[in-house]
Amino acid sequence: MGKTRDFVVFGMGKFGRSIAESLTNNGCEVLVIDKSDDIIQDVSDIVTHAVQADVTDIDALNALGIRNFDVAIIAISQDMQSSIMATILTKELGVPHVIAKASNDIHKKVLEKVGADRVVFPEREMGVRIANSLVSENFLDFIELSPDYSLVEISVMDEWVDKTLKDINMRANYGINVMAIRKGDDINITPGPDVELHKEDVLVVIGSNSDLMKINDTN
Amino acid sequence: MGKTRDFVVFGMGKFGRSIAESLTNNGCEVLVIDKSDDIIQDVSDIVTHAVQADVTDIDALNALGIRNFDVAIIAISQDMQSSIMATILTKELGVPHVIAKASNDIHKKVLEKVGADRVVFPEREMGVRIANSLVSENFLDFIELSPDYSLVEISVMDEWVDKTLKDINMRANYGINVMAIRKGDDINITPGPDVELHKEDVLVVIGSNSDLMKINDTN
Ligand SMILES: Nc1ncnc2c1ncn2[C@@H]1O[C@H](COP(=O)(O)OP(=O)(O)OP(=O)(O)O)[C@@H](O)[C@H]1O
Ligand SMILES: Nc1ncnc2c1ncn2[C@@H]1O[C@H](COP(=O)(O)OP(=O)(O)OP(=O)(O)O)[C@@H](O)[C@H]1O
Ligand SMILES: [Ca+2]
Ligand SMILES: [Ca+2]
Ligand SMILES: [Ca+2]
Ligand SMILES: [Ca+2]
Repeated sequence: MGKTRDFVVFGMGKFGRSIAESLTNNGCEVLVIDKSDDIIQDVSDIVTHAVQADVTDIDALNALGIRNFDVAIIAISQDMQSSIMATILTKELGVPHVIAKASNDIHKKVLEKVGADRVVFPEREMGVRIANSLVSENFLDFIELSPDYSLVEISVMDEWVDKTLKDINMRANYGINVMAIRKGDDINITPGPDVELHKEDVLVVIGSNSDLMKINDTN
Repeated sequence: MGKTRDFVVFGMGKFGRSIAESLTNNGCEVLVIDKSDDIIQDVSDIVTHAVQADVTDIDALNALGIRNFDVAIIAISQDMQSSIMATILTKELGVPHVIAKASNDIHKKVLEKVGADRVVFPEREMGVRIANSLVSENFLDFIELSPDYSLVEISVMDEWVDKTLKDINMRANYGINVMAIRKGDDINITPGPDVELHKEDVLVVIGSNSDLMKINDTN
């Protein structure tokens, strides 16, 4: 019931730093560890606890009480050996949830084999997201609800401008459902049929991927 | 109207490779450039065109007809000088839309100053996303609709299990609107009041950030 979890982040690269800073901003207790003294100096004012240590040093990890943390994030990927060792040691110490960053699919397989509970590819995932937004310029953001359905933010197509939702008849003509309309910072949730669309509006819609692709093609 | 744009991606690190592969999978023509011959060999079967060249070599860029591309993605960040040079040269050649990956805020400022149309921080953005999902374990994915409103995927809270939406009265009791319910790969869009929630369901909801935070706190 609202119990806070304790986080330890290994490796202060771009990803590790961002996750440590976001967790801290969310009010979490975060210990960060990096082998570089300079980096530890540098991050010491953005996180609660920053310690210089090598993650492959079991004695150091023991002394830091890593066994008491609920979640370990291993944000080291270029030095694959360090990332694998850190995964093995944190799991061996009994950390219930270990998340590790991987460089490629083989790295991922190894991390899972040695006990990582979740493997992430930050660069890859953002690459997919940004590519999708580039291909479909009117797709602003999206959530994959299932392999077939997505929720996307789309811009108003030229032929929709100044028409009402009833005129456009989204569901019948495009197979999509309008969940909300955003006008700047104002959100109109479950808009009625008489709401008129304007050029700068953003629609939050749900539809099958094939129907959503059609909207994009016609634009 | 459905006109395809031509993309060139400089740098085949994790981010560059992912964006090039996703664009290709979306049916786009993609040219990729990296200074390493081995890397070019390696990616040549996932993209349409892969060429070994140094992005700081204006003659090479000219010979490759970079001026004819609609979008350039500069996915080099460790070698800041290459990233800045590539941004200057692609803008000078007249590429309308240049997206550059940055390592930190200073790097971003420089890239914008020399003409980058958009600067991205893939590792940082995924760090924020994953931190948010860790802090609020029932927030599976989210879109910020405005500074105050978000659309989030949430798990079913224990006290909602086997109750209908009418019983729970989300809007009155929690200030949130249920847009869809996901059961595995099945999506129920704008579910009616008699739909019963089950443990494994995922709800797609819209609400103010403060109301959404409350759901998380009580869980
Ligand atoms: N054995 C180790 N013990 C502690 N810290 C380490 C160890 N090996 C590497 N690090 C630290 O991890 C950090 C990130 O490492 P690395 O460069 O491999 O990550 P990356 O995945 O490329 O990062 P980015 O998120 O920036 O893309 C560096 O600051 C490095 O000092
Ligand atoms: N001047 C250059 N010309 C062409 N390619 C280059 C140049 N400088 C670097 N590259 C290539 O860019 C690629 C990515 O570079 P870098 O390692 O800086 O990216 P990164 O942002 O750390 O990548 P990641 O997305 O993996 O985190 C490498 O494959 C490298 O060979
Ligand atoms: Ca990286
Ligand atoms: Ca996006
Ligand atoms: Ca997500
Ligand atoms: Ca988003």
